[in-house]
Amino acid sequence: MPISQIAVGGREEATHPDALKAALAEFLSTLIFVFAGQGSGMAFNKLTNDGSTTPAGLVAASLAHAFGLFVAVSVGANISGGHVNPAVTFGAFIGGNITLLRGILYWIAQLLGSTVACLLLRFATGGLLHGAGHGNVRAVVRVGVWNAVVLEIVMTFGLVYTVYATAIDPKRGTVGTIAPIAIGFIVGANILAGGAFDGASMNPAVSFGPALVSWDWTNHWIYWVGPLIGGGIAGLIYEFIFISQTHEPVPSSDF
Amino acid sequence: MPISQIAVGGREEATHPDALKAALAEFLSTLIFVFAGQGSGMAFNKLTNDGSTTPAGLVAASLAHAFGLFVAVSVGANISGGHVNPAVTFGAFIGGNITLLRGILYWIAQLLGSTVACLLLRFATGGLLHGAGHGNVRAVVRVGVWNAVVLEIVMTFGLVYTVYATAIDPKRGTVGTIAPIAIGFIVGANILAGGAFDGASMNPAVSFGPALVSWDWTNHWIYWVGPLIGGGIAGLIYEFIFISQTHEPVPSSDF
Amino acid sequence: MPISQIAVGGREEATHPDALKAALAEFLSTLIFVFAGQGSGMAFNKLTNDGSTTPAGLVAASLAHAFGLFVAVSVGANISGGHVNPAVTFGAFIGGNITLLRGILYWIAQLLGSTVACLLLRFATGGLLHGAGHGNVRAVVRVGVWNAVVLEIVMTFGLVYTVYATAIDPKRGTVGTIAPIAIGFIVGANILAGGAFDGASMNPAVSFGPALVSWDWTNHWIYWVGPLIGGGIAGLIYEFIFISQTHEPVPSSDF
Amino acid sequence: MPISQIAVGGREEATHPDALKAALAEFLSTLIFVFAGQGSGMAFNKLTNDGSTTPAGLVAASLAHAFGLFVAVSVGANISGGHVNPAVTFGAFIGGNITLLRGILYWIAQLLGSTVACLLLRFATGGLLHGAGHGNVRAVVRVGVWNAVVLEIVMTFGLVYTVYATAIDPKRGTVGTIAPIAIGFIVGANILAGGAFDGASMNPAVSFGPALVSWDWTNHWIYWVGPLIGGGIAGLIYEFIFISQTHEPVPSSDF
Repeated sequence: MPISQIAVGGREEATHPDALKAALAEFLSTLIFVFAGQGSGMAFNKLTNDGSTTPAGLVAASLAHAFGLFVAVSVGANISGGHVNPAVTFGAFIGGNITLLRGILYWIAQLLGSTVACLLLRFATGGLLHGAGHGNVRAVVRVGVWNAVVLEIVMTFGLVYTVYATAIDPKRGTVGTIAPIAIGFIVGANILAGGAFDGASMNPAVSFGPALVSWDWTNHWIYWVGPLIGGGIAGLIYEFIFISQTHEPVPSSDF
Repeated sequence: MPISQIAVGGREEATHPDALKAALAEFLSTLIFVFAGQGSGMAFNKLTNDGSTTPAGLVAASLAHAFGLFVAVSVGANISGGHVNPAVTFGAFIGGNITLLRGILYWIAQLLGSTVACLLLRFATGGLLHGAGHGNVRAVVRVGVWNAVVLEIVMTFGLVYTVYATAIDPKRGTVGTIAPIAIGFIVGANILAGGAFDGASMNPAVSFGPALVSWDWTNHWIYWVGPLIGGGIAGLIYEFIFISQTHEPVPSSDF
Repeated sequence: MPISQIAVGGREEATHPDALKAALAEFLSTLIFVFAGQGSGMAFNKLTNDGSTTPAGLVAASLAHAFGLFVAVSVGANISGGHVNPAVTFGAFIGGNITLLRGILYWIAQLLGSTVACLLLRFATGGLLHGAGHGNVRAVVRVGVWNAVVLEIVMTFGLVYTVYATAIDPKRGTVGTIAPIAIGFIVGANILAGGAFDGASMNPAVSFGPALVSWDWTNHWIYWVGPLIGGGIAGLIYEFIFISQTHEPVPSSDF
Repeated sequence: MPISQIAVGGREEATHPDALKAALAEFLSTLIFVFAGQGSGMAFNKLTNDGSTTPAGLVAASLAHAFGLFVAVSVGANISGGHVNPAVTFGAFIGGNITLLRGILYWIAQLLGSTVACLLLRFATGGLLHGAGHGNVRAVVRVGVWNAVVLEIVMTFGLVYTVYATAIDPKRGTVGTIAPIAIGFIVGANILAGGAFDGASMNPAVSFGPALVSWDWTNHWIYWVGPLIGGGIAGLIYEFIFISQTHEPVPSSDF
């Protein structure tokens, strides 16, 4: 997963063919991920009249997002690094693993991918998507607003820390082979924990598409502030504690 | 996964021992996959009197197809490429990764495998298989016909795009090791999203067996038209945007 | 997974330290697998008063066996080959990949492992294990006896075919890395299909332990005859069609 | 997974920068794991008024812990070995694969990580965590106390045996690539078996955090005694039967 290889770049990087291909890959990966994740919430509402807040609905949301994100990261890994998430891109930027220009390009692609996924879902299901709190278990806040921000910070920290440890860290070794599975499954695990409280987005793009298509921006800022703070902290800690010191050869014993 | 290695071939390829072995592998892989997937729908109907449209039934369908397809792709990967799906074979053909003759051989093997799986299931369960819409959550259309076609296009695009990115792309790297898991799990994710709306087939062979054995062809064309369009588009985009340009050495900086 | 490396051997193999270590590994792997699988059925009966025949109970049985077998194969892979199943050992023997003496040693170890797992479960749960049809969703036959035999043949064929394709075939390549996952998950998929009809054992040892401890041998022969036939056919087909011809160099074009 | 490489060390190891980094990694991994696992139990109680004892609640607990532990082990693997569990650290110590000082450091980090996870959960959910038996399916003993101890011994034996076979054993081969998945999933499988009887902790740190934060120490000793005995036995058996003899070159035939 060559996320760390894409940090180099120059002025014209945003129009470089490879940068455009990477953005297209981010667009398609986010589309595939949001289609499955958001679609599963709509499916459960159809089957059970708002069943997405039942235990079975939460298990389904967890699996749909875990499986979908794992695949979205896998298919993008060798083209764009497989971010599929503005908070991951931000965390990579904070740690110096992607340039600002390329990061902005990724954000645009990710938001577009989520939006197109929601438009396709709305058409294909005959207009079921009503936006946050209706078609989607993942944008209802059942705790206080600041509780939700803390939840998003902690859960996105775990996600971006996982991205760093399994996909960016040069010492990742064979763990890199299963990195996309780990990245998808930490989101699945966190949805089982946080989904009932604040929807467990961990991803501004996942929240942006449904909000735009249904034009319902209630609490939307939570899903930018929380994930960006959590992702930024993870990038800082991992890069400067776990990666940086290995860049300089350690003179003492290997221990 | 030597899908791309099987593109070469000649006139006598369809009768070549390796081609016949590959077709046998496709037949057995599809049999194993359809037996588990279709059987799980029948099991849930037995347990709950048409419970395959409940949340727990949808989760079970997702897991049975995700696990079953992952295994079917794994066991076929090194013999036939592990297509297990006429839409995947078509997408590989569109991108030039399989010849026409071999593709036809695969189609026949896949349709036969699905049919034999359904016959075995009908015998082993004492005749439960009533065909589309009865023994099977995956062939009921609960949205408009054209909505269903769009659903199948989008979902099969995601599936065949995954096959290309993880199993065909020469730059796939270590992602290739987990390719069968990714291919199985994107189907599992999409069933959670689309299963409640149109059954989420993404695979003409999966729909063909039950339709033939129960002689119920209602809406059957949807599951050919949608998947073939989606798979074809994925093959075109991936081959000509993400693979082709890497065939020619890039003179500029690596970026 | 050196299953194919263990085929060599001699007269004194059954008392060779490595053979005894391999048998111990089979014993422990089967204990771990049966403890999780059988225990999950008992847990669901405790929670729901015979809930193991509900959709949620079937999903739980599928996951417990898929996860448990995957791990049991993983931990045994490099010591004994990770058979964990007399039908797998028989299929390996039919294809010439294990000697008769070592196969008998494995059978004894597997049956002992399953028995000890059931004794531990009976003690730890205060005597809940009532045997086939009571403490266990996986030994009730809800179809005709011969239907059940066919089910077991087909499902065990899929399992042993998976073992051959991913763990024994010298051409398995990187698929070998995920072989234990594939082997565990085909059982999970088949339980979702066949669990409601005949319990979906695919493994004489899994049926033997509960039958012995509860001394209830009703229909027990089904879970020997079906799996051994299915596993034997898989060994024959895979070894002599897919493996054998590759032993002789193919003079014609690679195709 | 360099668990076996960290056995060397000296007097000043506990203050060595690498030891502190490893402890930080254990702290963060345990935090991520307990947040997801414990949070999922609280979520199901919120959704269903103590639904964590239903089949769907048990499936959710299994998945949250399987996915969460898999990720926690993955992200820590190359820094600390990814123990995330005092019983794993104890099993590694018994087998001579970690020093006493470093083991104590790991224990402190693991207990701190679990505690901080529970404090964060209590804040983020507005105070839902009531401690063992309330906010958590995993600390209620529904069998006799000694039955629970045996359950914990057997299940933790399986877990630590898995750690040894897939992550520590020098002969682990490609199984090492999927070791974190196996380690996470054996816990998921065991929760499906033992969760309904004694909570299936297998991990003193998992039980310590909720007990401390809710100051409810009922039966707490069970989750130290059982896991440490089970983990210690696994370390002894695996190290001295399956690993040790391979350290000395075997003069006889390879068999």
